[in-house]
Amino acid sequence: MAKRQGKQTIRLERPVSILSYASTVGKKESEGPLAPYFDVTSQDNFFGQKTWEKAESEIQRSTLQKALEKGGLSAGEVDIVFAGDLLNQCIGSAYGLREMGIPFAGLYGACSTMAESLILASLLVESGAAGKAAAVTSSHFCSAERQFRFPLDYGGQRTPTSQWTVTGGGACVVGPVGEAPYVKEMAIGLIEDLGVKDMNNMGGAMAPAAVSTLSQFFTDTNTKPDQYDLILTGDLGLVGSELLKQLMEREGHPLGSRHADCGLLIFDREQQQVDAGASGCGCSASVLCGYVLEKLRKGELKEVLFMATGALMSPTSSQQGESIPGIAHLVHLSNSPTAL
Amino acid sequence: MAKRQGKQTIRLERPVSILSYASTVGKKESEGPLAPYFDVTSQDNFFGQKTWEKAESEIQRSTLQKALEKGGLSAGEVDIVFAGDLLNQCIGSAYGLREMGIPFAGLYGACSTMAESLILASLLVESGAAGKAAAVTSSHFCSAERQFRFPLDYGGQRTPTSQWTVTGGGACVVGPVGEAPYVKEMAIGLIEDLGVKDMNNMGGAMAPAAVSTLSQFFTDTNTKPDQYDLILTGDLGLVGSELLKQLMEREGHPLGSRHADCGLLIFDREQQQVDAGASGCGCSASVLCGYVLEKLRKGELKEVLFMATGALMSPTSSQQGESIPGIAHLVHLSNSPTAL
Repeated sequence: MAKRQGKQTIRLERPVSILSYASTVGKKESEGPLAPYFDVTSQDNFFGQKTWEKAESEIQRSTLQKALEKGGLSAGEVDIVFAGDLLNQCIGSAYGLREMGIPFAGLYGACSTMAESLILASLLVESGAAGKAAAVTSSHFCSAERQFRFPLDYGGQRTPTSQWTVTGGGACVVGPVGEAPYVKEMAIGLIEDLGVKDMNNMGGAMAPAAVSTLSQFFTDTNTKPDQYDLILTGDLGLVGSELLKQLMEREGHPLGSRHADCGLLIFDREQQQVDAGASGCGCSASVLCGYVLEKLRKGELKEVLFMATGALMSPTSSQQGESIPGIAHLVHLSNSPTAL
Repeated sequence: MAKRQGKQTIRLERPVSILSYASTVGKKESEGPLAPYFDVTSQDNFFGQKTWEKAESEIQRSTLQKALEKGGLSAGEVDIVFAGDLLNQCIGSAYGLREMGIPFAGLYGACSTMAESLILASLLVESGAAGKAAAVTSSHFCSAERQFRFPLDYGGQRTPTSQWTVTGGGACVVGPVGEAPYVKEMAIGLIEDLGVKDMNNMGGAMAPAAVSTLSQFFTDTNTKPDQYDLILTGDLGLVGSELLKQLMEREGHPLGSRHADCGLLIFDREQQQVDAGASGCGCSASVLCGYVLEKLRKGELKEVLFMATGALMSPTSSQQGESIPGIAHLVHLSNSPTAL
């Protein structure tokens, strides 16, 4: 049974294992500091396809395929796949996974999708509803730019608070308790909206949701930030990370040196000219499935809080004068199956 | 524990109860044959808002609020809400539910969302991950037309296979086993794509997915169509329903008179000039939460298979020459908590 703990946290009485995982990134990401950790680094941002949207679907397909291969698994062994992306109607996922033959549950969590999908996959495995369950997501710089901002050819100016959408994806397959890494606890986030309207400051818009979920998790579990080796946010970037640290201190949970943000890890921010850092579903997905899960498996990291954040607006809602609602879902990952 | 049965079906060893439900529809739907069954029928398709997208958010908010009220529940008692809609980045759900203060898991299942959300809500309640969980979805004729087809002012011609997007929504709250109606079994669908490219023939595009899920369910459970009072598809409309019946007969599971389609129930097709029937997430949601669950509660229906179907394309994928992938998720609802 899963057990509710406090207001928002769910504890798995018997943890589940992440049996396998894989990551894919594009050219720019393959020139960044985490390059050695990714399974596939493509120098062709079209990934052999004719459009960027099809490239993004190909990222989803090939990344899940790679995760299955690495685990010695076949698609037929997976009972459900949770997947989503940023594209209108989530076509990255639907077209990417349509030929896999795995029962499909589509999600929309914006850049929180890696955490949302991993949470639901873990819960279904733990309950017996699925023997094995997969979680997949992706983003693509070029498909995101033309959908959310400007056609690339327009050469729009970037603001200092803007973040660079990662071209990449991550996939993992969850199964019953076995070897590390383990999923032990999770928290589904509330939608938080403090009125930020600047579509070029997603970090600022998402930070309140991150603070809400993370604070509630510490309260629910009666733990402190320094009991974790790493508290990893998805893509708050420079602006959102600073806000998170300030606000968590004010909430009585100072993060100290434990905090890192996938959006600040994947690129060399100054060298690679990405302004406030990286973003996109593929940012936290590739960093989790490329870098973090491997370190957890090896025991180089022991207790990790992975919290992916999402901005739930659309160009239409922004054009209609709306502010940007944020959300953050948290997963407690561990090298050990026993309680903290 | 949930138990896997056959290839795609999940059986809840202890069923869950749908504690409460509510439906909302717009003006045209309030003039149709199911009008007396809906909780809220608005004569103002703007629902008091300034844009159609905001109207759709208001449908989600007020329908969930109504379901809570009818059940004597407060938002604070609900541990998670699963919601999605057809709008880009699912803004109907995010903006509609942002002030509810309920942990939020966004879905994208196109018109299959009512089944997908109800399945996940039921699984989380059954496993103990949620004490109570809600499922919500909506659609709006005007927001859908301008996003997927033409600006309304353009006065585009409709084809005979086209379906009319319902303005409306449905919400239900699931809790531990109590009174009827019960959720006893479910099947998550595979993505099926037989190459239909006509965006004005969604029924045809979705029928293969409906056949796939429904056939597999009968095989997995070793049951026959005539063991159910009603086999209710979401929005196959006239064309898709005919295809479903023909193909199910070929698969060895003739549906006979048990089949009905929400897209053919909600409007008087000829009188109300809706061509091949109705569609949209709000179609199956309002028919389920307005008409079907009430009949199950009263015992006027005993065993119902509710299967909502979705077309997972986008205008972009169609412009890029892609065909339309379909999906269908199935829920076995019952008036009795014991096995069939």
